[in-house]
Amino acid sequence: MSQRSKQFHLNAFLMGVGHHEAAWRHPRTNADDVRSVGHFAELGRIAERGKLDSVFFADGLAVGPRIKHNALATFEPVTLLTAIAGATEHIGLIATSSTTYSDPFTTARKFASLDHISGGRAGWNIVTSAGEDEAANFGLDAIPDHLGRYQRAEEFVDAAVALWDSWEDDAVVLDPDTGVFADPDKVHAIDHAGAHFRIRGPLNSPRSPQGRPLLVQAGSSESGKDFAARYAEAVFTAQRTLAQGQEFYRDLKARVTAHGRHADELKVLPGIVPFIAPTESEARELEREFTELISPDYALRQLSAILGVDLTAHSLDAPLPPLPSVHEIQGNKSRYELVKELAESDALTVRELIGLLGGGRGHRTFAGTPEQIADELQLWFEQGAADGFNIMPPYLPGGLTDFVDQVVPILQRRGLFRAEYTASTLRGHYGLAHPSSQFAASRARNSA
Amino acid sequence: MSQRSKQFHLNAFLMGVGHHEAAWRHPRTNADDVRSVGHFAELGRIAERGKLDSVFFADGLAVGPRIKHNALATFEPVTLLTAIAGATEHIGLIATSSTTYSDPFTTARKFASLDHISGGRAGWNIVTSAGEDEAANFGLDAIPDHLGRYQRAEEFVDAAVALWDSWEDDAVVLDPDTGVFADPDKVHAIDHAGAHFRIRGPLNSPRSPQGRPLLVQAGSSESGKDFAARYAEAVFTAQRTLAQGQEFYRDLKARVTAHGRHADELKVLPGIVPFIAPTESEARELEREFTELISPDYALRQLSAILGVDLTAHSLDAPLPPLPSVHEIQGNKSRYELVKELAESDALTVRELIGLLGGGRGHRTFAGTPEQIADELQLWFEQGAADGFNIMPPYLPGGLTDFVDQVVPILQRRGLFRAEYTASTLRGHYGLAHPSSQFAASRARNSA
Ligand SMILES: Cc1cc2nc3c(=O)[nH]c(=O)nc-3n(C[C@H](O)[C@H](O)[C@H](O)COP(=O)(O)O)c2cc1C
Ligand SMILES: Cc1cc2nc3c(=O)[nH]c(=O)nc-3n(C[C@H](O)[C@H](O)[C@H](O)COP(=O)(O)O)c2cc1C
Repeated sequence: MSQRSKQFHLNAFLMGVGHHEAAWRHPRTNADDVRSVGHFAELGRIAERGKLDSVFFADGLAVGPRIKHNALATFEPVTLLTAIAGATEHIGLIATSSTTYSDPFTTARKFASLDHISGGRAGWNIVTSAGEDEAANFGLDAIPDHLGRYQRAEEFVDAAVALWDSWEDDAVVLDPDTGVFADPDKVHAIDHAGAHFRIRGPLNSPRSPQGRPLLVQAGSSESGKDFAARYAEAVFTAQRTLAQGQEFYRDLKARVTAHGRHADELKVLPGIVPFIAPTESEARELEREFTELISPDYALRQLSAILGVDLTAHSLDAPLPPLPSVHEIQGNKSRYELVKELAESDALTVRELIGLLGGGRGHRTFAGTPEQIADELQLWFEQGAADGFNIMPPYLPGGLTDFVDQVVPILQRRGLFRAEYTASTLRGHYGLAHPSSQFAASRARNSA
Repeated sequence: MSQRSKQFHLNAFLMGVGHHEAAWRHPRTNADDVRSVGHFAELGRIAERGKLDSVFFADGLAVGPRIKHNALATFEPVTLLTAIAGATEHIGLIATSSTTYSDPFTTARKFASLDHISGGRAGWNIVTSAGEDEAANFGLDAIPDHLGRYQRAEEFVDAAVALWDSWEDDAVVLDPDTGVFADPDKVHAIDHAGAHFRIRGPLNSPRSPQGRPLLVQAGSSESGKDFAARYAEAVFTAQRTLAQGQEFYRDLKARVTAHGRHADELKVLPGIVPFIAPTESEARELEREFTELISPDYALRQLSAILGVDLTAHSLDAPLPPLPSVHEIQGNKSRYELVKELAESDALTVRELIGLLGGGRGHRTFAGTPEQIADELQLWFEQGAADGFNIMPPYLPGGLTDFVDQVVPILQRRGLFRAEYTASTLRGHYGLAHPSSQFAASRARNSA
């Protein structure tokens, strides 16, 4: 068992009873689990048994046109992860929260609270909400334009970071004898005034164990990559081939260093949907079982939303109609390009495309033995396409259990993945330092 | 042990290591508990051992001028109650959330999530945020005016209720064979368009176990009482004498029936800060110990904030300076009036007033034996001043443990309080019906 100097990171991306859109119809799942908090607590424990870095929940602020066949969002991610925090001890807890439909004070506080409650295990997947129907739940007629959303996100994160920094690490004194609870010199107004927000601060919460939650990002457009290079410490991304993964990795790391950061301060985590079985043919057969359960009606609505074209009356066995240019897409630009390229390069019919997307909505699906999956992850890691992976089990809990019990031990034997936790915080798992408060630094300078 | 037809309700209002502002300096507390989630989980278990209806957390959206001596808000209430949900089974979980600095979609969703996670135990204390310094954290130069805040609150709650109703109770079908997750005819857009909010809906969460969280309110001004009469199912209030309590009770119930509701649909819960000891003199001595630990600097800042007058340079042993009229107060009008009346009626010095307010910031303090406390609660209940009580332990966990282990058994023996839980939801504990969705009713009419 060799211990390599560089190891990789594993996040479990959890969704309902699995990422495959027909997962809840397959006998390997119990559909009712989608609304069982016990189910999610158990998933947290399974992931922790596998020594994974973190679990993650996506989020959307509308049910959209999917109600009939699949509406999995029973729980709000921060509350759900708070429940999982109580059932686990080590694993990191990453929640999605939008910068387009919330404000920095509310958001900073909610993540500080999760970080306090979990003892330093909170992470924030920063999204700008690419869905058309989310806007209508927040007083808007249409989704704000793509660039504007990212500009707001930058100001939002700057303000949130200042709020987390507003209490220095040692601001709380708690001395019953003198009656001093906190040192007012170490608690700071932030006086943020920008194009979108004016916030006096300080945050109404002392600094949390991690100082700041882990900052995660998942958009891969040009604006998305620039944003990630500046702020993100981990990036989720959908990459279908090794070459594409390498290109994305190289591009993003170059942007990180261009921002004066060290390349290691951002971890690139491509997604993979693993169908695991003792033989490759059984794994393929398992994947086929799931594909056959896809409801074309649902899949067509999903695909229509991604492509910005109404396909609901389109023949399943015809190729796609002509698609708009990426410049016309205000939603998820990178996913649009990925799907368009996939469909056009192989001249797929709609039915074929739906099958390919069913597992992970564009993320790479891989059916194989535990060894084959481990080989594939090792290859991407060693060939410069990944610092770790976003594991998206097609069905739950079985798909996660199999990964943890069958794939993780192989990775551990190869010295690629930790055998025990060596840190107690999420930042620690990802090998990142505890950030110091921006106000501590300036106070130190002033008193020098 | 007689079982009376009408029983009363008990809520534990939990705050840091106790309501008394010097609680954290007293040897009966452990100051560090203010940031320990384990402490709060234990409080939930103690309250549940006493069969209390619910626990409750207040909330403020700024630390204000209190940082040096007392800043207790480490946790955000909904996440903290989510953590307590995992440590308990029956007790209701009431969180404060502001209508002035949030929006209906976000708020409706967060309480739906808590209700799902806790199996139907969520309650919302609806506040309009009376603090001056909260506004500056949300882009405003000053607090919005009192009436305007309540008007916004009405529209806010109407929209939130519509969102909770947007999924009918039986909308989720979850049939793996047909592939139908939800019945689209039972999931409704709300199309809310008002002066403050435009929201399409439906909520991105199926209907939660209680249908809607319990709606709680805690403002006692004229606008506050009208708001409560229309929306609230439980009301927290600070009443210092039996006569004042009776007058408030009568007034509020009359407003409830004027709104076409049954008087029993709203429970009036006055606050009480009990100092409990085996003899009355020991209880008084205990209270005195706490009063002596008050930091005058802190107390003056608190009092200045309540009264809208800067007292920080005022002599402790002089009477209060002239106070503004209630019409000039844009913050907490009812608390202002209570404190003003208290100070002026007995011509108190500032020091005396600070001592009287130290226990519960205006709520009634009562020092006595368990029997005396039980007598006092029974009196208020039987004399038409209360449907139950908001128990505000001056120090924690001891003040709650003593109440649960020494006062509750007396109330149970007298048949005034339940010996076992008879319901599984918070609404059930308070004897309230499961609300039906407003959309179910109209759908039934249309198809009739
Ligand atoms: C693994 C992964 C998870 C994502 N989760 C969410 C999510 O929970 N909510 C959301 O609104 N967008 C989510 N996204 C979408 C991105 O955050 C981003 O909004 C989208 O890629 C559009 O950004 P772009 O136009 O920069 O590519 C996710 C993307 C990836 C790759
Ligand atoms: C027991 C109790 C608890 C309260 N909790 C809060 C709170 O957590 N946050 C808040 O902003 N106001 C709180 N208040 C204040 C009221 O909600 C309300 O804002 C205040 O009484 C002003 O309203 P009024 O002017 O109608 O009296 C509380 C009041 C009482 C009696």
